[in-house]
Amino acid sequence: MSLLDKKAFEAELRSYERFYHIHHPFHIDMNQGKCTREQIQGWVANRYYYQIKIPVKDAAIMSNCPVQSVRKHWVQRILDHDGYGDSEGGIEAWLRLGEAVGLSRQALVSESLVLPGVRFAVDAYVNFARQASWQEAACSSLTELFAPTIHQKRLDHWPEYYPWIEKEGYRYFRQRLSEARRDVEHGLAITLDYFNTEPLQNRALQILKFKLDILWSMLDAMVMAYVYDRPPYHCVTNR
Amino acid sequence: MSLLDKKAFEAELRSYERFYHIHHPFHIDMNQGKCTREQIQGWVANRYYYQIKIPVKDAAIMSNCPVQSVRKHWVQRILDHDGYGDSEGGIEAWLRLGEAVGLSRQALVSESLVLPGVRFAVDAYVNFARQASWQEAACSSLTELFAPTIHQKRLDHWPEYYPWIEKEGYRYFRQRLSEARRDVEHGLAITLDYFNTEPLQNRALQILKFKLDILWSMLDAMVMAYVYDRPPYHCVTNR
Repeated sequence: MSLLDKKAFEAELRSYERFYHIHHPFHIDMNQGKCTREQIQGWVANRYYYQIKIPVKDAAIMSNCPVQSVRKHWVQRILDHDGYGDSEGGIEAWLRLGEAVGLSRQALVSESLVLPGVRFAVDAYVNFARQASWQEAACSSLTELFAPTIHQKRLDHWPEYYPWIEKEGYRYFRQRLSEARRDVEHGLAITLDYFNTEPLQNRALQILKFKLDILWSMLDAMVMAYVYDRPPYHCVTNR
Repeated sequence: MSLLDKKAFEAELRSYERFYHIHHPFHIDMNQGKCTREQIQGWVANRYYYQIKIPVKDAAIMSNCPVQSVRKHWVQRILDHDGYGDSEGGIEAWLRLGEAVGLSRQALVSESLVLPGVRFAVDAYVNFARQASWQEAACSSLTELFAPTIHQKRLDHWPEYYPWIEKEGYRYFRQRLSEARRDVEHGLAITLDYFNTEPLQNRALQILKFKLDILWSMLDAMVMAYVYDRPPYHCVTNR
């Protein structure tokens, strides 16, 4: 790939939507009403681990960023997820989703349902944010480009397909619809500015792919556990 | 679990053999001659990523260890894998195994066959060694307790089941038979000394389980790709 102007580079980044986990068979099944209660619960409990690591990841990015104006902007993500003052934040909203699908708050918080493959994938994201430059880590957040559609689809289809899910569970998806749109503009601006040579633009695409790999791998681990019924050590007696 | 004396604690650690990947269906198939050429190649190419990260992991442990006598001992693992002087080392032996199963050296070194799920699991091991104390990281190496059996089984069965594998490929397994036995005594002594309270002994078992999760997850990712024929983005056009 030769050096692209900002518009073409943005288009190239956006074209990676084809690797987004919205196209993963588990996700397609989920949005077509084909998942069982146990599969939905497994997804919510595992995705919880992703949710709680987001502010940790964002703090890691800030810990590597000497630019005050960027930190001042970026901290909003932490406030959004952890909550701030009277506002409850995304993690709390996710816990409500957990309850809405029939999981106890305690089961989610204990992380006992989190599959090792999911844990390793999410931790790879956090460790990348710790070890990469803040611009590279900001770039890895660009899967947010594709997030509004996935949240909207859930809001459109889940109430019909999964009437047993309590309605107040959907607050997280609604909240993220607007937050993700706002966040991605900032991450995108950083990326379009910083990755301004051919090797850097290739690197940005590689980073975005790495993040897409994380989201895809999480669902793969869930397929093993909840579709093929092969959670870790399934065949081991006395596990 | 209440505080165990060293002998009982060692027995408890050894009892975790039940979670070792020798019991994973993919491994059982592999040692019963049921794997295809592509599956064996996939395993060798992915396990290569583990091999090349071992000395990195060991350097991370040493970077956290202020005790010269421990480092002096531990460095042997790096020499064994990277090679030293005229001795070629484990990574080179693994590359020979790759060639023996029909992969080019270039294909292995490029890491193009390494699955994201395998990468995340292996990287979790390296990051643990970076972030944990050296005693905890030493403890995570204790899956070596169970390694001689797995190497011996490969040496016993592969030549019969997979006559197409060139014989000089087996050097790695032979080499590790004696090395793993020696290494594990050191890691075990550190663990038995350091984890000397009830909470610490529980922590040691947790760490060993974390490492076993890594090995198991690696095979799960390979099952998705090479047994269920669902490598990442298998369903995505233009991948």
